[in-house]
Amino acid sequence: MGQTGGSAVTVRELGERGTLARILPLLPLSHSTLVPPGDDSAVSTIEGGAVVTTCDMMIEGPDFRLDWSTPHDVGWKAMASNLADIAAMGATPTGVIVALACPPETPIDLLEGIARGISDGLGEMAEGCVVLGGDLSTAPQLCLSVTVLGELADHSAVLRSGARPGDVVAVAGELGVSERGLRILREHTNKAGGVLPETTRDQLRLNHPEVAHHLAPTAPIALGVVAAEAGATAMMDISDGLVLDATRLGEASGVSIDLDGSLADQEEALMGGEDHGLLACFPPDSVLPHGFRAVGNVVNRGDLWVSVAGAAPRVSRTGWDPYRDASSVNTAVSP
Amino acid sequence: MGQTGGSAVTVRELGERGTLARILPLLPLSHSTLVPPGDDSAVSTIEGGAVVTTCDMMIEGPDFRLDWSTPHDVGWKAMASNLADIAAMGATPTGVIVALACPPETPIDLLEGIARGISDGLGEMAEGCVVLGGDLSTAPQLCLSVTVLGELADHSAVLRSGARPGDVVAVAGELGVSERGLRILREHTNKAGGVLPETTRDQLRLNHPEVAHHLAPTAPIALGVVAAEAGATAMMDISDGLVLDATRLGEASGVSIDLDGSLADQEEALMGGEDHGLLACFPPDSVLPHGFRAVGNVVNRGDLWVSVAGAAPRVSRTGWDPYRDASSVNTAVSP
Repeated sequence: MGQTGGSAVTVRELGERGTLARILPLLPLSHSTLVPPGDDSAVSTIEGGAVVTTCDMMIEGPDFRLDWSTPHDVGWKAMASNLADIAAMGATPTGVIVALACPPETPIDLLEGIARGISDGLGEMAEGCVVLGGDLSTAPQLCLSVTVLGELADHSAVLRSGARPGDVVAVAGELGVSERGLRILREHTNKAGGVLPETTRDQLRLNHPEVAHHLAPTAPIALGVVAAEAGATAMMDISDGLVLDATRLGEASGVSIDLDGSLADQEEALMGGEDHGLLACFPPDSVLPHGFRAVGNVVNRGDLWVSVAGAAPRVSRTGWDPYRDASSVNTAVSP
Repeated sequence: MGQTGGSAVTVRELGERGTLARILPLLPLSHSTLVPPGDDSAVSTIEGGAVVTTCDMMIEGPDFRLDWSTPHDVGWKAMASNLADIAAMGATPTGVIVALACPPETPIDLLEGIARGISDGLGEMAEGCVVLGGDLSTAPQLCLSVTVLGELADHSAVLRSGARPGDVVAVAGELGVSERGLRILREHTNKAGGVLPETTRDQLRLNHPEVAHHLAPTAPIALGVVAAEAGATAMMDISDGLVLDATRLGEASGVSIDLDGSLADQEEALMGGEDHGLLACFPPDSVLPHGFRAVGNVVNRGDLWVSVAGAAPRVSRTGWDPYRDASSVNTAVSP
């Protein structure tokens, strides 16, 4: 279960009630939810008559490894990736539901670290968003499933399908930084014979901001609503790399996207995933909202969904498939 | 992965896109959701300004075993247990979010069976409730995390905390039937040396309705709203046995509950879980809604949270703790 240090009290010793008693005080539980945790379901207010929902499951092995990520990172990153999907609709995250399964021998420290990461991630990226409820269970390895709810203010959801030729293509947040962090972690893990020592990990994240960003990215969540209010025609979060995600947006909208020539040699920016920034299209001549920068234009549908200065992007791979690419579910690491 | 028969095509061979292409047509995806599956998040309408949410994770091993449950059972039971938590608030289930992780070598048949179970369970227990979205991932064993959303009509949520002395205590649905099914399955599994042969399983469920009910319970979901409209003062679903769940309701309300003497010798009804019926309290002299039957009365708080004709219930155990009771996560079976 990685390096946890401190108390070796396990969740088996504490039982479900004792475990909850340790975790719940660490989480931002709302005073404004209509029903306290512990009833059959949570009840929370939602403005605007529509609820926005997204869900992501993270499994130790395929999705994260505890010699790289601290428990705090695991909780934080689960927030970043899910909140970004809500932001990408132009919505405001309002509540989080967390299901967690772990082996009975898991130290309570580990779950407390995840809870603190959830709390800190919400505080940094989505203030006011609370934990509505969840579930505790047992599993042979750590398994976290997060569902996030959000609400739309006075505008409609911003879909992937609304981009029109002539629109400006813009991004908010980092491009390729997470990929650079991932490469550093891989290189040092290989050097260390397959498992990264805790001291090396701590050193790497101190010396390389991109490692810290890979392990616990800060996503520009509040800019989702800002983009919607600024008239974004289409939006999505960049979780699998700019080229692949722009391809998806182009396909959904029936258009092609031509990226700036300045990106041509930036392979990490073009194909690196897990930055959880936002990719948005704005009508021609829009003043881009603060936090967004132009990276290209929407053009009529052509032979390529995505081009860079009119040419095919030079990238070595295009995406991640959880079933095909996870050659061993115990060691593979995404993307 | 149990007995699946038929095609041996695996999810690894199909990849994520191919797997989704096989599963999505089997699910009740709504025409009324505001955003089609495939965008960053789902958007669905919700009436009444409040959203009711619940979540449950089911892991192969601790929560189900594939020599007992068919894939269809797994999907169906995930619906029954989660829908019951929505019904227990007096709410109507509107949407389901399903996260599923499985080994890459999982036959697609198995996931299709789960999808059909989800679809059939929703059709039988919560018509109009749709699948809003989900997530596919890899894990060493099958892992299903279900979140259900619901809406309240013109009334408030019915909490556990509203019972008052003098109220009638009533139940809807089965009591102890799932426990009887569980005992039959355990007995025949022990006889067979620890793993139940498929033919025995099929025979048992044909000959014993309680086995079929344990594996795929039909919960009285629509009666949740009915109870709320009839003025229920408190309600919860009976997932861990009548005595334990009535204790929780009594504690939340600060009252005691005295059950009918006719239940004194019915140990399975008193302590058996997983029937997912409803336990509700109604004001004195209420006409109970069709589908509910009186099983006791709310009394002033006494030494016992729950009594049977004034005496302590005679039961051999009171509940299930996922961490303490799962001595081996690979073989233990709840409740």
